[in-house]
Amino acid sequence: MNEPKTSVLSNGPEDQNMLRKMLDNVKNNNPLIHNITNYVTVNDCANALLACGASPIMADDPEDAEEITAICGGLNLNIGTLNARTIPAMLAAGRKAGEQNHPIVLDPVGAGASTLRTNTAIELLDTLKITAVKGNISEIKTLASNSGSTRGVDASAADAITPETLTQSVAFAKELAAGCGAIIIITGAIDIVADAGQAFCIYNGSPMMSKVTGTGCMLSAITAAYLAANPESPLIACAGAVAAMGLCGELAKDRLTPQDGNAAYRTYIIDALYNLDSETLTGGARYEMH
Amino acid sequence: MNEPKTSVLSNGPEDQNMLRKMLDNVKNNNPLIHNITNYVTVNDCANALLACGASPIMADDPEDAEEITAICGGLNLNIGTLNARTIPAMLAAGRKAGEQNHPIVLDPVGAGASTLRTNTAIELLDTLKITAVKGNISEIKTLASNSGSTRGVDASAADAITPETLTQSVAFAKELAAGCGAIIIITGAIDIVADAGQAFCIYNGSPMMSKVTGTGCMLSAITAAYLAANPESPLIACAGAVAAMGLCGELAKDRLTPQDGNAAYRTYIIDALYNLDSETLTGGARYEMH
Amino acid sequence: MNEPKTSVLSNGPEDQNMLRKMLDNVKNNNPLIHNITNYVTVNDCANALLACGASPIMADDPEDAEEITAICGGLNLNIGTLNARTIPAMLAAGRKAGEQNHPIVLDPVGAGASTLRTNTAIELLDTLKITAVKGNISEIKTLASNSGSTRGVDASAADAITPETLTQSVAFAKELAAGCGAIIIITGAIDIVADAGQAFCIYNGSPMMSKVTGTGCMLSAITAAYLAANPESPLIACAGAVAAMGLCGELAKDRLTPQDGNAAYRTYIIDALYNLDSETLTGGARYEMH
Repeated sequence: MNEPKTSVLSNGPEDQNMLRKMLDNVKNNNPLIHNITNYVTVNDCANALLACGASPIMADDPEDAEEITAICGGLNLNIGTLNARTIPAMLAAGRKAGEQNHPIVLDPVGAGASTLRTNTAIELLDTLKITAVKGNISEIKTLASNSGSTRGVDASAADAITPETLTQSVAFAKELAAGCGAIIIITGAIDIVADAGQAFCIYNGSPMMSKVTGTGCMLSAITAAYLAANPESPLIACAGAVAAMGLCGELAKDRLTPQDGNAAYRTYIIDALYNLDSETLTGGARYEMH
Repeated sequence: MNEPKTSVLSNGPEDQNMLRKMLDNVKNNNPLIHNITNYVTVNDCANALLACGASPIMADDPEDAEEITAICGGLNLNIGTLNARTIPAMLAAGRKAGEQNHPIVLDPVGAGASTLRTNTAIELLDTLKITAVKGNISEIKTLASNSGSTRGVDASAADAITPETLTQSVAFAKELAAGCGAIIIITGAIDIVADAGQAFCIYNGSPMMSKVTGTGCMLSAITAAYLAANPESPLIACAGAVAAMGLCGELAKDRLTPQDGNAAYRTYIIDALYNLDSETLTGGARYEMH
Repeated sequence: MNEPKTSVLSNGPEDQNMLRKMLDNVKNNNPLIHNITNYVTVNDCANALLACGASPIMADDPEDAEEITAICGGLNLNIGTLNARTIPAMLAAGRKAGEQNHPIVLDPVGAGASTLRTNTAIELLDTLKITAVKGNISEIKTLASNSGSTRGVDASAADAITPETLTQSVAFAKELAAGCGAIIIITGAIDIVADAGQAFCIYNGSPMMSKVTGTGCMLSAITAAYLAANPESPLIACAGAVAAMGLCGELAKDRLTPQDGNAAYRTYIIDALYNLDSETLTGGARYEMH
């Protein structure tokens, strides 16, 4: 996220007015997002959703999850503190969301770090109609190596996304997107948002975001909101969410005083999401298409 | 909450000195409140309780809940993320609290949105000695329509509490209070706090409070504290908690800078609870009796 | 924590340069800490770990806990909202951590308040290779009275640690440390950090820390980080964590404005941890050896 670039998008269908529309649609449609997510950062996810113009609801009992999903517009599945109760709830909610054509975001937190996390992430990806997967390169490569639906994908992408490794990583993301039929969002110094044909490489963000727990979880939550409000343009919706989150990380960084640390930064990030308008987003988003 | 009015209370037993006493008793008695609540806003509930002068404890395993309730002065039940473990814990804690004549607050989050939530809220209301129920009009109407103890209550109250619908909504709240034997707190643009005979209509608050997850949950938690510290005056205790929370929403709103958003607002609300003294509460509370 | 004293440590092996090294090692080694902790303050624990230079991971399903512990450098067990799922997870993670010689911190929240909490704390202490136990005097005395490994310990220490009762409390802490083989950290107006032979009595902190939920939980979390980064000096590591947390409570107190309350204070405490450098720690730590 350290390589500022101006946008190189032309006035095609994916030009900056599209990002503007993505954000405005969230604010205008106020989608209700069902989150089955970890208890570490769940409060920040809820406030981030409210900040961007959506509404959150959390329900993780298998008996409750399906009905709650049915009244929502999108589903955010995050395995950060998965357990024997929430895994079946994720599957039940995900099946229901699929039946209703609600977008589903999967955040495979810690895939690769334990068997339960890896297997659960794979099961969710292979079983459900996942719209977008968001992870770091390690988590995404774990999915690429293990999912039945991604067999044959070359997971030898570099372990960090840098200008040098970008071409290789973009190719990997597109191939994985083609294999599993979901948009692939890989976060890192440069964020990649790819479907089988196109990739946004997004340069917004600040390294300090990694010093606040939950910036990735908040991104997954608001991605579900952007997708729910923009069913016609899922790739651009995901790019809009990623650019918005990264830009808010920058705006929040500018607000820090010498005594501030990661706790104030957390507050400033959510506040920036709250105040972000489409002018600021289109003016501040820095990305290129690959 | 947009219709400022000056207090119209006379110097009767419910005059402003009563609100003062409600708050002072919380600070002087420091009640310990057992919360079985959702994991989304639980941290804010704990800090809100500390801010108002009470102390929080959380325990939601069925094996633990009863003993913890026994050492507390009040119980706050919130079904925001209910599950197969916490529902029996709520019932066990509620029975024990009832035996000990501790006040119990029920926050039926999402009643009406799913079968599990509706049924659980009804079971808690019908089984336990609930002192006060706090919900939005939709949740409260769900209880009115389904609870065995409220059969015959006319649930055709308006779906939003406005000056135009206030009389109808107050009548509904009083009837429901009579039916189920609990104080009914309906939050909205105007908050209603009613028992069978009297209702406070409270005009404090800010619409921006709905942009912070957990302002309703915090209200339920501090209501339990106000009830525990004021066993002689449950209706006024509830009104004091509702006025205090709404007034803190206003004071926090005044503190916002242009860069602040809902995350700073959350901090300011809890800070306002921390700094709220009885002078400020009696001076700022805006309500009328019906 | 109200009795400021200058450090009386000589230039022995435990002099102030040792505290400096403790903090620097956390920042340089960036230990990954596995937390099985309560859902009330878990977000603050995660951000506190990030603030001090460590990294957090949470995993509390029995099927997940062991593998996650295996990739970490330390384990923090906190029974604040223990339940039937997390207790076996704590035992499984603790056994694995013991096999790998990872430090384990036990925070017996509420031991003595319920049978489940007391029994669980005792089982964890008696079964696992606990490196340090951190609690208030009431919790620690409960362990002393009940643990099989501490039979014979005189638990008649005073109920509050004050200058008058300090000698008695230090003797109790050392005896308990000898009995159970763990460093004993008793928090209070004066904090005691003791092994069988030596005790740090630490005067840092502010009474207002008790108005923020989770300051004790954060201390346990960062103690695990200090221990993981300083395997050669566990007693000094614990003293460093306790002094750092207390000092940050003081620095955060100095930052409060009249409108600030316990919510701003919470932010300032974590921010102070984020900005704390070894100069500030060694200059601000106030303790004496007993």
